[in-house]
Amino acid sequence: METPLILIDPLPRTLDLICYPEIRRRLEELGRLVISEDRPMPDEMVEKYLPEVSLLIGQTAMPRERLNCAPKLKAIVNVEGNFLPNIDYQACAERGIYVLTPGAAFARSVAESALAMAIDLARGITAADRAFRAGAEKYGLAGNEGTFLFTGAPVGIIGFGDLGRTLRALLVPFRNPVSVFDPWLPPEVIRDHCCEPVGLDDLLGSSRVVFVFASATSENRGFIGKREFELMQPGSVFLILSRAAVVDFPEFLRQVQSGRIRAATDVFPDEPVAAESPARSMEGLLLSAHRTGGTTDALLQIGRMTVADAELILRGLPPQLCRRADPAVAARLRSKPVAVT
Amino acid sequence: METPLILIDPLPRTLDLICYPEIRRRLEELGRLVISEDRPMPDEMVEKYLPEVSLLIGQTAMPRERLNCAPKLKAIVNVEGNFLPNIDYQACAERGIYVLTPGAAFARSVAESALAMAIDLARGITAADRAFRAGAEKYGLAGNEGTFLFTGAPVGIIGFGDLGRTLRALLVPFRNPVSVFDPWLPPEVIRDHCCEPVGLDDLLGSSRVVFVFASATSENRGFIGKREFELMQPGSVFLILSRAAVVDFPEFLRQVQSGRIRAATDVFPDEPVAAESPARSMEGLLLSAHRTGGTTDALLQIGRMTVADAELILRGLPPQLCRRADPAVAARLRSKPVAVT
Amino acid sequence: METPLILIDPLPRTLDLICYPEIRRRLEELGRLVISEDRPMPDEMVEKYLPEVSLLIGQTAMPRERLNCAPKLKAIVNVEGNFLPNIDYQACAERGIYVLTPGAAFARSVAESALAMAIDLARGITAADRAFRAGAEKYGLAGNEGTFLFTGAPVGIIGFGDLGRTLRALLVPFRNPVSVFDPWLPPEVIRDHCCEPVGLDDLLGSSRVVFVFASATSENRGFIGKREFELMQPGSVFLILSRAAVVDFPEFLRQVQSGRIRAATDVFPDEPVAAESPARSMEGLLLSAHRTGGTTDALLQIGRMTVADAELILRGLPPQLCRRADPAVAARLRSKPVAVT
Amino acid sequence: METPLILIDPLPRTLDLICYPEIRRRLEELGRLVISEDRPMPDEMVEKYLPEVSLLIGQTAMPRERLNCAPKLKAIVNVEGNFLPNIDYQACAERGIYVLTPGAAFARSVAESALAMAIDLARGITAADRAFRAGAEKYGLAGNEGTFLFTGAPVGIIGFGDLGRTLRALLVPFRNPVSVFDPWLPPEVIRDHCCEPVGLDDLLGSSRVVFVFASATSENRGFIGKREFELMQPGSVFLILSRAAVVDFPEFLRQVQSGRIRAATDVFPDEPVAAESPARSMEGLLLSAHRTGGTTDALLQIGRMTVADAELILRGLPPQLCRRADPAVAARLRSKPVAVT
Repeated sequence: METPLILIDPLPRTLDLICYPEIRRRLEELGRLVISEDRPMPDEMVEKYLPEVSLLIGQTAMPRERLNCAPKLKAIVNVEGNFLPNIDYQACAERGIYVLTPGAAFARSVAESALAMAIDLARGITAADRAFRAGAEKYGLAGNEGTFLFTGAPVGIIGFGDLGRTLRALLVPFRNPVSVFDPWLPPEVIRDHCCEPVGLDDLLGSSRVVFVFASATSENRGFIGKREFELMQPGSVFLILSRAAVVDFPEFLRQVQSGRIRAATDVFPDEPVAAESPARSMEGLLLSAHRTGGTTDALLQIGRMTVADAELILRGLPPQLCRRADPAVAARLRSKPVAVT
Repeated sequence: METPLILIDPLPRTLDLICYPEIRRRLEELGRLVISEDRPMPDEMVEKYLPEVSLLIGQTAMPRERLNCAPKLKAIVNVEGNFLPNIDYQACAERGIYVLTPGAAFARSVAESALAMAIDLARGITAADRAFRAGAEKYGLAGNEGTFLFTGAPVGIIGFGDLGRTLRALLVPFRNPVSVFDPWLPPEVIRDHCCEPVGLDDLLGSSRVVFVFASATSENRGFIGKREFELMQPGSVFLILSRAAVVDFPEFLRQVQSGRIRAATDVFPDEPVAAESPARSMEGLLLSAHRTGGTTDALLQIGRMTVADAELILRGLPPQLCRRADPAVAARLRSKPVAVT
Repeated sequence: METPLILIDPLPRTLDLICYPEIRRRLEELGRLVISEDRPMPDEMVEKYLPEVSLLIGQTAMPRERLNCAPKLKAIVNVEGNFLPNIDYQACAERGIYVLTPGAAFARSVAESALAMAIDLARGITAADRAFRAGAEKYGLAGNEGTFLFTGAPVGIIGFGDLGRTLRALLVPFRNPVSVFDPWLPPEVIRDHCCEPVGLDDLLGSSRVVFVFASATSENRGFIGKREFELMQPGSVFLILSRAAVVDFPEFLRQVQSGRIRAATDVFPDEPVAAESPARSMEGLLLSAHRTGGTTDALLQIGRMTVADAELILRGLPPQLCRRADPAVAARLRSKPVAVT
Repeated sequence: METPLILIDPLPRTLDLICYPEIRRRLEELGRLVISEDRPMPDEMVEKYLPEVSLLIGQTAMPRERLNCAPKLKAIVNVEGNFLPNIDYQACAERGIYVLTPGAAFARSVAESALAMAIDLARGITAADRAFRAGAEKYGLAGNEGTFLFTGAPVGIIGFGDLGRTLRALLVPFRNPVSVFDPWLPPEVIRDHCCEPVGLDDLLGSSRVVFVFASATSENRGFIGKREFELMQPGSVFLILSRAAVVDFPEFLRQVQSGRIRAATDVFPDEPVAAESPARSMEGLLLSAHRTGGTTDALLQIGRMTVADAELILRGLPPQLCRRADPAVAARLRSKPVAVT
């Protein structure tokens, strides 16, 4: 069998960031690697290799004309983590070219942070540390005023993909009743994970802790706004872990400022956040600078998933770890590409 | 059957703190209640009722002479949470009088806090919030420098009673390898909880996250000191959730100050902590003012466990929820009584 | 410290049956062993050693007079598995002598059998094998007539001690709603195991699968009789795994014979069962000759639990694996001693 | 929006077999149903409706010419459970037509049977029942000779798709070490399910209980033969739950007959099995007439999964419950169509 040619165009990732040595070794055994890591792969370089390429690992634009020049191409693996609009998904489907992304690589990092932040808000952990540093700590029962036990508290999850499901698994020993709102999923899938499928309003009204994992799509911009926040019970906890665009962010900050809810957010409409943003000094807000997912471990998961699936594909077997692009879905997603890892 | 007499002397708790209405109602149905909540029950009051008392709920001193005057006494339930030396445990054993404490009432509150704090230290959650408030946040991968994934990290648990076991159950979905040091337990019990029984030194050297739940006894004062801390890997995480006396506390603070380890502590040698304590400004320390256990929910658990066991005992059945004092063990414990709830 | 003297009088067990070599070695390291395995320890031998004995492993009679002659005795471990009336439990309590039994040793053996038998009855496994051997098998859907899926079916557990709880843990992935009837337990304990505490009638009426683990006591002889069986839904499944005495056995057989219920039983009023017993040919009955518990593995568990607790006790620590006799409870139990292992 | 046309050609299933009333109602709300249940849909009927059909539920042949005549077709759902070679999978992929099968519908039925059969063989349940009926039962320990505890025994799973994974989840409380052989899966997927990926020989040599869930493909006919059976430890247990073709069946029967292994099989090279087959009287064989999967409940799962996915597809969303055909994989499968349900 001839040695497959593998184009690697991973920026803003690099192979070192996503592969530990054993995985790098497995990748090198798969074929001949052509790598562009210091800059996006130049057009002439891409085009030169199209006739021979079997596998493309990276975010290279692949319109139909390029696909037409790549008769041996079997798969494209986006290692950034979000499907981008620079690929002709329909043409790939027709050709049986897998378009993949190891999106689940981030799930464990995000889910464990999300859980810790939720307990933090329920129990006042960071706030109590801050009070202690200010010499204003309260001991014992007095120090727990306004807090609640996370164990057993009703939880709502908005968006039930890899992240939401990984979090849900972490909740099992806490015995929370869990309701889920995800308009892309049938109730059967939600119930199979021991959650109750509900509408958005019901979820907001009945949960003490609400996790937002919803992707940003062409249809859901700002779908949690003033009306929705006001459905929440006072003293509840709200965590944004996916995209700032899915909430009305100024209204979100007003709700936290007012003290009606406590919240955490890992994302902001503009990053970096302005120095003078009022978010920086809100008592009820736990601030995270888009860092719940992007851990060293998550990046190494990307390499592990990519290489394991590449091995299968080159053996003629279907991939098992990365998510496949669905042309219908890919067209709806509205993620911004990541500028820096 | 004659109506049992129940003495209730719960300070520093009160019935309202430990019983929600349904539990209070069940308690009142059990017998005639004689309650002293505004002050410890006066001696003359205790002594007046001894001949008739069936159940004592509270921390009243019960030396052998008093026990001798209480022929109907079936059980003493300490609702503070720690066995005190003011009871003649041997005399109770001879008489078949249960001496009980609902110590497990605090387990869920402590365990969920402990888990959140451990993830917080592994992932830098509170520290990142503090940096954000100071305008010094870093985004994405850069913001995760020096952190590690809690999921899958080796965990060590020192002291494997109610608290340690409740925490262990919360760890299941995280798939941490868990080692346990508890010199009071046989390896069989530890293995039954899917943990590895190890010596203290092994535990400290091999764990990324160490939880201390050990009770203070007559034998273990300061058993984790300089030598032990130096066995830990740099960048590891250490959490004290039981009693400050079990560690060499000044050395503990030196280790955190030096940056070798990150830590959380819920307890301090002297509480409240002095205003000028250097602990208040250490970057690597998560500060908690003896508040992981004393939640509203935990106190209500006390009532629930006390009343459920009282119901059984008055039906002639053994208690099922509270822990029984073991004369041998009770003599070794060195908890200070709680002054305020 | 002087070498403790350990009397070993284990019949109908023998040390070889209950100890694998490593456990035997640990036992021998504990002290000087005086063993009687070929016959019950003769009275004169027992009495000779009483003044020095620290630990008694076996079923030797220990009335108060003997206890009075054994000032160093710390614990008695019954290795047969049931507390017998030949011990003065009250005298032991007064002296702080632990009376123990490794009753949980049988739990895993019984529970896995019980689960397999329940699925067998729900799905018709043994019956289908019998039909196949008779040349009367039916394929596919036709072969499943009258069966039901065990997964998710309502389960009732009568008696919620070690056996019931071990079974309950095995059910978790099957997602059965589980109700429990146990008059010795408060609802709190049952709910802590994710079961619903209910009355006996409710349990029988609402469950598709009923497991009986109740011990025989002075109060519950035949408490499941005609009236109770008639509460069960036709086509339900009933399994007896503890003592035949707790059901009206002739009525039980009539119910199975009639085809109203399918059943399994591991116990019989008289064992061995008479050659001509009609039970031997009932279509709806799964027959087990008192063999769900008495496995090689269970017997080896006895030794493991006994020796681990003996080690603790001789170090002055409380036992952790065996169950302690409760004088009140021990007096109510009505188990027959086991004649053969 | 115009009402979608849905062709329903489900034989050997019928709508009543696969839909309970609520699911039938949801199906009817989805569009206009054209149903052929008493015979396979006649060609002229299929062809008449092709120009309008949105959804095809059934096993109708769909070569490229028919697909070309069905411009509105969005999905084909095979409700028999196996992909058949009568569809042009490549043409469907090019058109973005989902080809689906609710194969997981059988997983719970098969998995619970497989577990019960494995415990049965480990513990001798059906064999003991047979002995009891023959008047030859042995009680207690004597009745357990040659058996072993399933709990904790090393398990091997061959083929790790829906069935194998569902079984694996049932094993969790039994704490078996589980190894998996599946050449279509990367080690990462197997480890994510807490199993050890191993080669076939290792699996056979190290497991006490071996489950075969492998599909029959063009490549694996009889891949478990004499050499492989001889790698197994004497007294081990072997269960065939997928297709008889994957083992050398005569050799399998010889191994069971010899007493080296105990076994269960749900499938046979020819069904119905010949009246005089020696399999019918083998002591070590648990016989099941292709009935572990085909339960009423599994058939109703088919309808539930089909209708839930049909709802999503008609809303423009990707299916979530059924498995999608992969052209590469579909070409390798060698299932015989089911003649009767």
